[in-house]
Amino acid sequence: MLGGTGHEGTGLALRWAKAGYEVIIGSRDATNAISAAADLQSRSGGLISGAENSDAADRADIVVLAVPFQVQVKLASAVREALIGKILIDVTVPLVPPKVARVQLPAAGSAVEALQQILGPEVRVISAFQNVSAHQLADLDGPIDCDLLVCGDDPEAREQVCQLARAIGVRAWHAGPLANSAAAEALTSVLIFINKRYKISNGAGIRITGLQEE
Amino acid sequence: MLGGTGHEGTGLALRWAKAGYEVIIGSRDATNAISAAADLQSRSGGLISGAENSDAADRADIVVLAVPFQVQVKLASAVREALIGKILIDVTVPLVPPKVARVQLPAAGSAVEALQQILGPEVRVISAFQNVSAHQLADLDGPIDCDLLVCGDDPEAREQVCQLARAIGVRAWHAGPLANSAAAEALTSVLIFINKRYKISNGAGIRITGLQEE
Repeated sequence: MLGGTGHEGTGLALRWAKAGYEVIIGSRDATNAISAAADLQSRSGGLISGAENSDAADRADIVVLAVPFQVQVKLASAVREALIGKILIDVTVPLVPPKVARVQLPAAGSAVEALQQILGPEVRVISAFQNVSAHQLADLDGPIDCDLLVCGDDPEAREQVCQLARAIGVRAWHAGPLANSAAAEALTSVLIFINKRYKISNGAGIRITGLQEE
Repeated sequence: MLGGTGHEGTGLALRWAKAGYEVIIGSRDATNAISAAADLQSRSGGLISGAENSDAADRADIVVLAVPFQVQVKLASAVREALIGKILIDVTVPLVPPKVARVQLPAAGSAVEALQQILGPEVRVISAFQNVSAHQLADLDGPIDCDLLVCGDDPEAREQVCQLARAIGVRAWHAGPLANSAAAEALTSVLIFINKRYKISNGAGIRITGLQEE
């Protein structure tokens, strides 16, 4: 969990640890990571350890990247060797402060496509969790009122991420190739706008409608 | 209703006519428009007439553009004079066949921003209805199981479009500036992907979650 000391990373770490997965919190500073992990472990009742980012990436089976857009490429590139052959779940939203409620997608179409190009095809990059409220994730007794759009060019890797999402009670959808992450990345700014406009304190989310079994 | 003989335009025309609005169907050919209008009028029980596109734009108070991406700019530019000072509701989704389930947003960020730049600030362009299933719109006895993201740089014009949506039973959200239309435009390809992947015949849609009053 690279960026595991941030809001979204913290929330995901708590949920997965509670669901029985072993989680390694990564941070630039190993001491910070270990300290954060100890705190999260006691909150989740699960197994959470801390390590410097490249150590964490090395030890993990599946790596999650949950850092601000501004450091996404730099951090992932720095640990690239440890990502080869693994699934990298990229949670990055290309927010450009100060106008975070305005969609400002990068020239590549989406932040995650730019990342995949830099990391190369040996890393199986999957985009997910952009729209799930960190606030809701961290409230372990509360529901997560948001569906997940899971995008990636490798359907089997996408399915693994869908299963990881379902393990923490999130309804996940195969949402198409990595290019389709533009929708999820753009939606986050829309949800931030809606949160402000309609005073939604707990975080707006999305649901996909139309499935008859509902 | 420019492009009122297409699927999305037909559905919207039926719904608004049924709700008591006078609708003018526009088409390249006046004869086609008049013939389509007569058919839709009998189905909706409302007031629907037909006219050549520039005539229709000239006579309308609010103009809806519901045409394929490939003719969007050409048609809107051709009737630009008639749009000055009016609200133009752009329904265009930048689908690029054959890969319509793959997000392929234009370089301007979204199709509607490119259109606004070409039409200039005298036309109040609002983006809406990209995600609402034409199939559901046309089934006048059925519900519309999709929320609407309404984007535009003029909040007052946005509110008028929200009200037009509510008049046909669609829950509409102020979703931010025109740039945020990238989310709605991209989502359509995601929904097409989901329709195929999960065999949703009636059209997947989205709901925004998080409002306490629900």
